[in-house]
Amino acid sequence: MTNAARCWTSGDSSTILYRVVKQSQDRLDALYGALADPTRRAMVARLRGGPLSVSDLGEPFGITLAAVGKHVAALEHAGIVRTHKSGRVRSCALVPNGLSDAAAWIQEHERFWNARLDALETHLEENP
Amino acid sequence: MTNAARCWTSGDSSTILYRVVKQSQDRLDALYGALADPTRRAMVARLRGGPLSVSDLGEPFGITLAAVGKHVAALEHAGIVRTHKSGRVRSCALVPNGLSDAAAWIQEHERFWNARLDALETHLEENP
Repeated sequence: MTNAARCWTSGDSSTILYRVVKQSQDRLDALYGALADPTRRAMVARLRGGPLSVSDLGEPFGITLAAVGKHVAALEHAGIVRTHKSGRVRSCALVPNGLSDAAAWIQEHERFWNARLDALETHLEENP
Repeated sequence: MTNAARCWTSGDSSTILYRVVKQSQDRLDALYGALADPTRRAMVARLRGGPLSVSDLGEPFGITLAAVGKHVAALEHAGIVRTHKSGRVRSCALVPNGLSDAAAWIQEHERFWNARLDALETHLEENP
């Protein structure tokens, strides 16, 4: 068994904490990675109008169906989109609150950073 | 001259619009790409405490100075961090509102999506 596998299969609380943090990090990697592409952002915007088949979703982008499938897989892996197969047609829909973790990390950052700027402003006002 | 180069150097308004949209897309690609890595997110969090030299910034991550430099370059390219060289020391600091475009795109998405869910809820209430 590798060290990594041992770490993931042992049951103490620090390993559980590590696993929770790791899953949260992997999720943010996948979320921001999925959003770091203009075609995938345009697909997300297109799905705001409602579910679409994979081929209808990809239609405006002038790319192969295989390329559309890869973008959809990245969005599905990130939890932004879910797909459902009915017969030979796979349809795509947005996951409600699928971007909330991505929004939360940025909001947390802005809260910390603004508090720091406010503290600096107060310090400069009190020590002219 | 390539078609792409011709497009970028001609001066009509559709080309200017294309350039503005392209720059905005490139910026979002760089922003989300920079955030899609746990080490870079940890570096951003670390810089909330104030500016640090590149070597101090990278210290907790157990990676080479060259690797730290690559992460810093990605953050700088995305407009999240700025660097300043004084003598032989390069220091890093957060750019105020550096994540605001990344936040704005997600907020715009959530506004559209929530409006759609509200409309669906109203429709279901009115047509039980």
